[in-house]
Amino acid sequence: MTMLDVKRNLTTMTDFYELTMSAGYLDEGYEDKIAVFDMFFRRVPDGGGYAIMAGLQQFIEAVDNLKFTDEDVAYLRSTGVFDERFLSYLANFQLHCNIWAIEEGMPIFPQEPIVTVEGPAIECQLLETLLLVTFNHQCLIATKANRIVRAAAGRPVMEFGARRAQGYDAAYYGARASYIGGCGSTSCVMAARDFGIPASGTMAHSWVQMFPSEYEAFKKYAEMYPDACVLLVDTYNVLRHGVPDAIRVFDEVLKPMGKRPKGIRIDSGDIAYLSKKARKMLDEAGYPDCTICASNSLDEYLVRDLILQGARVDSFGIGENMITAKSDPVFGGVYKLAAVKEEDGSYTPKMKLSESAEKVTIPCLKKVWRIYDEDGKAMADLITMADEKVETQHGITLFDPIETWKECTYVHCTARCLSTPIYENGKRVYESPSLDDIKKFCKAQVNTLWDEVKRFENPHRYYVDLSQKLWDTRSALLKKLSK
Amino acid sequence: MTMLDVKRNLTTMTDFYELTMSAGYLDEGYEDKIAVFDMFFRRVPDGGGYAIMAGLQQFIEAVDNLKFTDEDVAYLRSTGVFDERFLSYLANFQLHCNIWAIEEGMPIFPQEPIVTVEGPAIECQLLETLLLVTFNHQCLIATKANRIVRAAAGRPVMEFGARRAQGYDAAYYGARASYIGGCGSTSCVMAARDFGIPASGTMAHSWVQMFPSEYEAFKKYAEMYPDACVLLVDTYNVLRHGVPDAIRVFDEVLKPMGKRPKGIRIDSGDIAYLSKKARKMLDEAGYPDCTICASNSLDEYLVRDLILQGARVDSFGIGENMITAKSDPVFGGVYKLAAVKEEDGSYTPKMKLSESAEKVTIPCLKKVWRIYDEDGKAMADLITMADEKVETQHGITLFDPIETWKECTYVHCTARCLSTPIYENGKRVYESPSLDDIKKFCKAQVNTLWDEVKRFENPHRYYVDLSQKLWDTRSALLKKLSK
Repeated sequence: MTMLDVKRNLTTMTDFYELTMSAGYLDEGYEDKIAVFDMFFRRVPDGGGYAIMAGLQQFIEAVDNLKFTDEDVAYLRSTGVFDERFLSYLANFQLHCNIWAIEEGMPIFPQEPIVTVEGPAIECQLLETLLLVTFNHQCLIATKANRIVRAAAGRPVMEFGARRAQGYDAAYYGARASYIGGCGSTSCVMAARDFGIPASGTMAHSWVQMFPSEYEAFKKYAEMYPDACVLLVDTYNVLRHGVPDAIRVFDEVLKPMGKRPKGIRIDSGDIAYLSKKARKMLDEAGYPDCTICASNSLDEYLVRDLILQGARVDSFGIGENMITAKSDPVFGGVYKLAAVKEEDGSYTPKMKLSESAEKVTIPCLKKVWRIYDEDGKAMADLITMADEKVETQHGITLFDPIETWKECTYVHCTARCLSTPIYENGKRVYESPSLDDIKKFCKAQVNTLWDEVKRFENPHRYYVDLSQKLWDTRSALLKKLSK
Repeated sequence: MTMLDVKRNLTTMTDFYELTMSAGYLDEGYEDKIAVFDMFFRRVPDGGGYAIMAGLQQFIEAVDNLKFTDEDVAYLRSTGVFDERFLSYLANFQLHCNIWAIEEGMPIFPQEPIVTVEGPAIECQLLETLLLVTFNHQCLIATKANRIVRAAAGRPVMEFGARRAQGYDAAYYGARASYIGGCGSTSCVMAARDFGIPASGTMAHSWVQMFPSEYEAFKKYAEMYPDACVLLVDTYNVLRHGVPDAIRVFDEVLKPMGKRPKGIRIDSGDIAYLSKKARKMLDEAGYPDCTICASNSLDEYLVRDLILQGARVDSFGIGENMITAKSDPVFGGVYKLAAVKEEDGSYTPKMKLSESAEKVTIPCLKKVWRIYDEDGKAMADLITMADEKVETQHGITLFDPIETWKECTYVHCTARCLSTPIYENGKRVYESPSLDDIKKFCKAQVNTLWDEVKRFENPHRYYVDLSQKLWDTRSALLKKLSK
């Protein structure tokens, strides 16, 4: 992390209504009123079976740096909307919240709280926008990247999207999120520098065009970078010029140096056809170890189809379809009030009604548990009240929260609490793992999911169930509210 | 603009291959080789008839602040890829380029250069990613916002998307771009503060839930903000509770103060039905001036349909569909080599061939002109060689660059050169207008387009033609290259 990031102050990355509401809470004497808010999402992008949690480290950095500057306060004063008491509250803002989150890299599912904030209502409200934009963005990209990486079935995937990203942060944090999701490298220098992601990239068509001929362009490149020689072979014609020119340069420049070529890249045309032909030419020329990289508007479906068609592609460069999650570019995480603490210390559960059962929120301060079977496979998630403990030594019976007759009993299972304390009374109690550890954790946890959940289309719906106690509380409140 | 922005160094927002190529150019003795690169796009998002230029001010800020820091150089050294001569070149990097761009707010069309960079090949290359990500993002959002604003047909549109944006910059610069495209305000405090955009927003459902009743929540809000009282009426039930509670509070709190309510907001349910019923209730209660705002996953199609169905909506709050341009979230701008300057001062035109005629690039250092008829309507754009002057006093005949038999002669027309000098020999010669002036310019220039070009679906294709001289040069090169 550079100094620049440490200094970047994202406190005003907030919606104006968070401030008008907060000023109202302060004026009403609600400054000590404790509320509980959950972030959750209702639908996995692209109709997938699970999403990937990402963005926690950036959220922590932003929260650690929360501060309304004199400039911010002066600006807010200039709007004429706020009184001096509130402006002074902001100038002296300090966090007192408890925050729990599911760790980065973990597969996550609809309805379950992935972040929970408990604290003074004003503080909960001031965090809302910052929290949502951070997780919504990185979860979106990590989830998309994980789909593409799975489609590539072990072949390295390189993130190439910076130029088509929705702004600098989308390129920067998008590179981080795609690395968590399983990409092996990024083309974005800033992300590589700050996150320690391997940087990748060799040449553009302009390199080839800048020289008198493709052969001379390749020759220069091989001389400059004999250990990392990947040649872009489609500027003029892949099979007639590109591959023959590459082979000639491998022979003339690399062979005398005792070096092996690293690869060729094909960025246009029919990748299945061209890669098979190019493979044959490279093999016959004595370069069976020269890899072929493909990079032309690919996504998980094209990658899967290319592999199914026997394309001889060893690695993929993925641009706009991943960095914008083009096919479904919004991770619809929301942040909803779940409870309010009363003066006697008890919690009044809060929920929002809706016409459709799936949109009714889950009230109370809660925890999320994952149930693994004896082989370590994830069977279901269980949402409980925060004060419940999940015991599994005698097996556990879960039921669907909507179709309650659907029951399932698991024996020989273990339960892991996913809700991890991040802040306690405004003090950070969590240290983010290294990005490489997050990436490994993601891979290991995705491996605990059944293949049925990992299907691209129409996957098996993973169970996210409620404890009996939580279900009872929710049903009672539902009955009361709908009257 | 805040201090934070001035300090933010985006120099490494670049693809790694820009650096490997640049190092190669330096090593080859190409450091003084002058190249010409154009940014252009091939397709208007959402199948629209035109896009909106945006992002120039941020590009300028980034270029003015270009500097590889010691930290950057140390990082690049650590990759083991670059030699000390190149690293020292970077450490002492200075810009010598000429840069032209179309001004922000201008409608732009496929194929025409919207930005042109002429200068040492290394510098052109080092600018590529930064240039593309800046314009691709802001052009995308300004274009989408302009569609939504047109659909709203004069009703104010508020930008509400921060929480669903693809990262902080997407929220921040997205708010700026949507303001250029015609939005009247943003919910994002940071964008409002730094760009001088009016901030908007009143309350969330959580405000209503935090109080013992909706009535008490409304009452408190009206007391706090009697001059800007917009109440969110759909937390429980719009027609049974929300609107009656709002009217009661208008009567009890605002009327005695001699204040009029500003509005109500509906964020769920069927907006057409609910707004008509709510309108009737408000009118009958003596509040015909109380506006109705709608804000539930709207885009240009829903806005248009709601208005067609007679919905009584006075303003729209637009979130994820605008801030991510959800229906088509990539502005596919590219940056291609167009010419290389020879030692004798002449330019060798460069182009990239392709199977499809539309994908063949346009070579040479060029200018873009817009031809307006005597009523000020935009008739066509004309791309010429940079040294051509467009004279219109005797009329002008244009022809389609692909279907060349399609000719059109314009008399009584004027030509405006759109290619505006931004940098000359690395020195900035352009000052961005104020954001409000850019917004006004956008509105005025969109008004010069025919309605046929502004249609959402299947719009008339606006003519972008080449001068005879440019067409001849391109045809000759095409013939030569395809041999």
